[in-house]
Amino acid sequence: MTITESTADTATQFEDALRRADIVAAELRATAAERDRANKAPIAEIELLREADLLQVGEPVAYGGSGLNYAQSQQLTRRIARGDTSIAHLLGYHYAQQRIPHLFGTPEQADALSRRNAHFKTFWGGVQNPRGASGLELTREGSGFRLSGRRTFASGASVADQLSITAALDGDLVFLSIPARREGFTPLGDWDNIGQRLTDSGGVVFDDARIERDEILGDDPLTGRVPNAYQTLVTPHWQLAFVNFYIGTAEGALEEALDWTRLHASPWETSGLDAATDDPYILELIGQLQSEVRAAALLADRAGDALQHALDIGPALTADQRAEAAVAIAEAKYVTTKVSLDVASRLFEIQGARATTTEHGFDRHWRNLWTHTVHDPVAYKAREVGDWTLNRRAPQFTLYS
Amino acid sequence: MTITESTADTATQFEDALRRADIVAAELRATAAERDRANKAPIAEIELLREADLLQVGEPVAYGGSGLNYAQSQQLTRRIARGDTSIAHLLGYHYAQQRIPHLFGTPEQADALSRRNAHFKTFWGGVQNPRGASGLELTREGSGFRLSGRRTFASGASVADQLSITAALDGDLVFLSIPARREGFTPLGDWDNIGQRLTDSGGVVFDDARIERDEILGDDPLTGRVPNAYQTLVTPHWQLAFVNFYIGTAEGALEEALDWTRLHASPWETSGLDAATDDPYILELIGQLQSEVRAAALLADRAGDALQHALDIGPALTADQRAEAAVAIAEAKYVTTKVSLDVASRLFEIQGARATTTEHGFDRHWRNLWTHTVHDPVAYKAREVGDWTLNRRAPQFTLYS
Amino acid sequence: MTITESTADTATQFEDALRRADIVAAELRATAAERDRANKAPIAEIELLREADLLQVGEPVAYGGSGLNYAQSQQLTRRIARGDTSIAHLLGYHYAQQRIPHLFGTPEQADALSRRNAHFKTFWGGVQNPRGASGLELTREGSGFRLSGRRTFASGASVADQLSITAALDGDLVFLSIPARREGFTPLGDWDNIGQRLTDSGGVVFDDARIERDEILGDDPLTGRVPNAYQTLVTPHWQLAFVNFYIGTAEGALEEALDWTRLHASPWETSGLDAATDDPYILELIGQLQSEVRAAALLADRAGDALQHALDIGPALTADQRAEAAVAIAEAKYVTTKVSLDVASRLFEIQGARATTTEHGFDRHWRNLWTHTVHDPVAYKAREVGDWTLNRRAPQFTLYS
Amino acid sequence: MTITESTADTATQFEDALRRADIVAAELRATAAERDRANKAPIAEIELLREADLLQVGEPVAYGGSGLNYAQSQQLTRRIARGDTSIAHLLGYHYAQQRIPHLFGTPEQADALSRRNAHFKTFWGGVQNPRGASGLELTREGSGFRLSGRRTFASGASVADQLSITAALDGDLVFLSIPARREGFTPLGDWDNIGQRLTDSGGVVFDDARIERDEILGDDPLTGRVPNAYQTLVTPHWQLAFVNFYIGTAEGALEEALDWTRLHASPWETSGLDAATDDPYILELIGQLQSEVRAAALLADRAGDALQHALDIGPALTADQRAEAAVAIAEAKYVTTKVSLDVASRLFEIQGARATTTEHGFDRHWRNLWTHTVHDPVAYKAREVGDWTLNRRAPQFTLYS
Repeated sequence: MTITESTADTATQFEDALRRADIVAAELRATAAERDRANKAPIAEIELLREADLLQVGEPVAYGGSGLNYAQSQQLTRRIARGDTSIAHLLGYHYAQQRIPHLFGTPEQADALSRRNAHFKTFWGGVQNPRGASGLELTREGSGFRLSGRRTFASGASVADQLSITAALDGDLVFLSIPARREGFTPLGDWDNIGQRLTDSGGVVFDDARIERDEILGDDPLTGRVPNAYQTLVTPHWQLAFVNFYIGTAEGALEEALDWTRLHASPWETSGLDAATDDPYILELIGQLQSEVRAAALLADRAGDALQHALDIGPALTADQRAEAAVAIAEAKYVTTKVSLDVASRLFEIQGARATTTEHGFDRHWRNLWTHTVHDPVAYKAREVGDWTLNRRAPQFTLYS
Repeated sequence: MTITESTADTATQFEDALRRADIVAAELRATAAERDRANKAPIAEIELLREADLLQVGEPVAYGGSGLNYAQSQQLTRRIARGDTSIAHLLGYHYAQQRIPHLFGTPEQADALSRRNAHFKTFWGGVQNPRGASGLELTREGSGFRLSGRRTFASGASVADQLSITAALDGDLVFLSIPARREGFTPLGDWDNIGQRLTDSGGVVFDDARIERDEILGDDPLTGRVPNAYQTLVTPHWQLAFVNFYIGTAEGALEEALDWTRLHASPWETSGLDAATDDPYILELIGQLQSEVRAAALLADRAGDALQHALDIGPALTADQRAEAAVAIAEAKYVTTKVSLDVASRLFEIQGARATTTEHGFDRHWRNLWTHTVHDPVAYKAREVGDWTLNRRAPQFTLYS
Repeated sequence: MTITESTADTATQFEDALRRADIVAAELRATAAERDRANKAPIAEIELLREADLLQVGEPVAYGGSGLNYAQSQQLTRRIARGDTSIAHLLGYHYAQQRIPHLFGTPEQADALSRRNAHFKTFWGGVQNPRGASGLELTREGSGFRLSGRRTFASGASVADQLSITAALDGDLVFLSIPARREGFTPLGDWDNIGQRLTDSGGVVFDDARIERDEILGDDPLTGRVPNAYQTLVTPHWQLAFVNFYIGTAEGALEEALDWTRLHASPWETSGLDAATDDPYILELIGQLQSEVRAAALLADRAGDALQHALDIGPALTADQRAEAAVAIAEAKYVTTKVSLDVASRLFEIQGARATTTEHGFDRHWRNLWTHTVHDPVAYKAREVGDWTLNRRAPQFTLYS
Repeated sequence: MTITESTADTATQFEDALRRADIVAAELRATAAERDRANKAPIAEIELLREADLLQVGEPVAYGGSGLNYAQSQQLTRRIARGDTSIAHLLGYHYAQQRIPHLFGTPEQADALSRRNAHFKTFWGGVQNPRGASGLELTREGSGFRLSGRRTFASGASVADQLSITAALDGDLVFLSIPARREGFTPLGDWDNIGQRLTDSGGVVFDDARIERDEILGDDPLTGRVPNAYQTLVTPHWQLAFVNFYIGTAEGALEEALDWTRLHASPWETSGLDAATDDPYILELIGQLQSEVRAAALLADRAGDALQHALDIGPALTADQRAEAAVAIAEAKYVTTKVSLDVASRLFEIQGARATTTEHGFDRHWRNLWTHTVHDPVAYKAREVGDWTLNRRAPQFTLYS
């Protein structure tokens, strides 16, 4: 943070932001099932986030932001996920992308982008799916560059104001940040998945798009440098977003199921009970899920604290300190994945048969969670935790870990 | 069975029927995802079953059937479920409905319906959802009756040739069997659920529909009789169908996932492997699911044997013998529910992220299973098993147990 | 707290106490398996706690204690459980018993007992097993009383300096606190269970033991009063102790298993690996357990905070505030029970066959946990959580909830 | 089988043997907890098996056996495990050892040993623990051999009449069968584990023990031969024994827990019930466990059939046919391991706190199962199943798979 603010101000800013997020989440939930079926680009939804001043919360108050730290911003992702996992996904990635210039850019680049973010409430999309061999290639042209190639799963890219891109230059990975409306850039609009339907996560193509030097983050030379431990925190940024929209989804889905149950559930025929809300098995199951969601949420909080602690150390961060943060997030990733998938399935046991009507769309939670969680197998996350715990072997740096 | 056939003939008939079912299942699977999205009435699918001579397998060979016993017929349901759970649901119920005249009807009624079933390859739908207070009421009118009322979840009723109905007459439950095209009968076409989308399980209304005396099963007097233990096997008939289409779904979903994995799955980035098919976690998971599916399928076989054994005893069946059959099915219901839901979720862990594309429709298994399994909470099934095992208290007779 | 101390001092006191507990835990762990087999009264162990100044931590610094609040004291229980669950059980109950005079006694009674606790480092045992019909009866005799009856599961009573007792007086429940060496009091020495073997939890008999008026907590009249919400926090005191020694056991057991694995485990024959510490399944399992233990521990922390918050409110506590604390502990009870039992079983999968030698005694964790956790069925705890979450029905006050 | 018997006779023999096994199991159960604590050599127990004519059931009726096939004999192991897992372990291994001459010996060797087995009711122990580098070495001496070396986990060797041994000769694995009282053979009596305490599974030493040529199974030359697929069925023989004593343990433990519950369990305080046997959570849990045990037992039956089918094919067995049998057993191993461990833990939830008294020894099931199941990690078994299911890669032949 370049501008100092008092802790009390930050607390107030944070609480205000949480409140705004809760309102947006409630609004999103009311229409989530319907929008899930419609499967349109999330343009109105991003407008909602923008109008609620949720896009620039990580920027300094002096610039027009809320001065929240990264861990705080991902608590907003969690709140939004209670209403709509797709939109939380977009918001969580957006917060992560906005921090990349602070890791890889020069102070001037980072500051200039911060000002823009705060001023224009810029929405960031990413072109970074690390999976798959093919990718984006930069070639030099005069004082600038040309970018070509194709990527899949570019969440939010087609509706973004600003794109955060990873590409290869002379065989090295570089990070770019460019305005989205660039000649030669084409989103393919080919996203049609069983879940996260509103994340606009289709493929994109760059065809000889012009890139200026200062759109590539960092000092000269641009290549030949190995990222330091602090910079490799880029991946935990994304991972923390995941953790938060998983657990937020579970919290929201459970809340929604309980609301419905209080109003609509009927007691089971042979239970001898007058109300489903007295059913011993339903009460036990709610207690179990509620307890597990709570524990997972605390672990997600801890993961946020761990990453924030590492960020607060700054460029002096050691490899072991980086590992502590990455492993804390991996722990939370394992538990939140497991718990949220469990909640998303078993809520039908609470609600009963009538909750399976398409209209309610209660299956979307499960579809959303599977669509995202399998992009990064949880067995390997658990293995990373185990390897660190048993052998003090740190997770290797990839765009996944 | 009124006509005696040799065991060898029956074995051949059974194998032929299984083979026909496998072919139909393969055909259904090829289009299942697409048809699930289209959400149309299952007219073509029932035609497919009819053309494959699968509708009359339970009728005597002499009449044009295959002479299979009830347990054998539900093995066909299982096969069909490997390709399409909705159609298996319709077929499984159909087989159950066709046996009701043999439980509640006079020998003449049963025989006449058998002949019709075999000759016309009649498809039976049911109007029997036992849940909910309101229902169908018969009133006397001259030599016949009038039927009025409304039911939900009337699987296959709108596309059926023949309807199997339960209704109240003078406060007692009676069973009817009538041709489907009856004045005063209106299917509501209001089925739109997250799963079992092709089961056509909407509501129906009877508005003063004329019913003849011989369309009500049984001798005079029609009311005031308590069903004997043998007749109460009516519920286990349906329950056995459920067990079979649950486990068949799991078998088919796993097979489908493995086929896809062999062709399309990619190894995980940080696994250091060349092929997903060598991944230790994927192999372990497949082994776990395969083993559990196999165990559950054996328990489903045992449930079929138990019911068939009870049926073979006939009207002399004691309450305890009835309980043995009902509990064997409840055991299978618990295990097949648990295992099939687990398979339907975890197949994404095997296949990975690309399997979440809508086109494949791999989420339909989970949606199908939840839609049906919550109609009859599995906690209460487990409780029935426990109560019998610990206390020798038999499951009470309802249209669920 | 009657004496004000600065927060900084308390933090130091707390850290010192944690450090002392860690040392005692290490010492206990080294001999835990052997002492478990020997099954003797825990006299030396209590001496160890006393010498480490762990018995009076909850008393004011001015009296010779550490001024810790109740939640802090139960963190010590957790630390001790990492070394020996039996001794942690005794310590956790001891802390709870020491707080009872602050809930039910007059200020004078509470203060006098605090001074004694701090000065003599008194060890408290309890005679309170709430289960079972029979119990202890007080009858009036002159200015005092006589106590007679029998109780089971009186943890620590035979080795205690001070006894905390619940008994019936005129049909009401009253709380007593008396020095342990009292004529007419006989511990039966009949504790021989599969776990918690060192808790000395056998039965006790009171045979016409003389009780003075001021040994019964509270003002006159002693009976006819319903405990207020604040006083009913007595049960959450015990429950918080349970939560902490469950999760501490899991933490210790896992740590112990990993230590052993690093030194002694061999790779599986067909794994093709040189070291068990590289086994993908072992690493995954460690990661899973570690993540779940961490989440459960955070939930236990939250439970401590919730109870402490309620205690800090004091006698003005409302029924709903009491419920919030009780439910927070019930959530933690459910999760810590489940997770700790899971760890205690699956550590053999990490360590392999050689870890099953009696000498190591690695089975004691599982035996300890089952012995205690079944005293208070976790299904009912989950149900309490569910009933509050769904219906805002508070857990009824019993000596279990 | 060298002697033909009618199927009807075999069925009678089998039923008789099952009945004898049930009686022995009941006798063993009555004293199992006490004998587990005493930890003595299982001499009386083997005598019991011998007196019940259970040792020679696999030998031809004409020789004095019962003519049971191998799968049938392992059903006896399962019955015995309902009473005592240690003794079932010894019996299951014994049956497996007795079949080795039929796989590796000449017809004359096999026949001679069969006659001896039947006549003397010989009890076989094994010296074959495949784990660990060091082992037994044979060296040539005149017309015979000398055997030296050390093995661990030699179940039953110290109490055996006949030893089945694997040793290295010129670098190849050979199988021996020798009378147990041999100069140079010393059991170490060092078995002291948390479970399977009566299996006498300590280490043994051979110190230059004389071995005659015909005590080594097979024709000349003894070495340089790769076992054919049929011979590699040796491992599935052991594995089928494991599967059966795991599931038999679960069946027995559950039965025992229910017996106890009917007599001794008390209702939970806050349940509002008069009897524990009406508790909804207890009934549900019993139903769940009962259903899972039943499914696992059916899978164990199937595994027996699969191995028997492969044995019935004989030396012409193909590698793929061998794999089918091995994988069927691996499936059963995975499921029976999981289910039996689950039963052995959760039975306390059924019985409640009083069942944790040492006297009852209800913890022995869990200790027995863990002690054995970890000798052969279940993750690798599941992986074998997965690798065959997905890739048709057969389990490699080791003494574990």
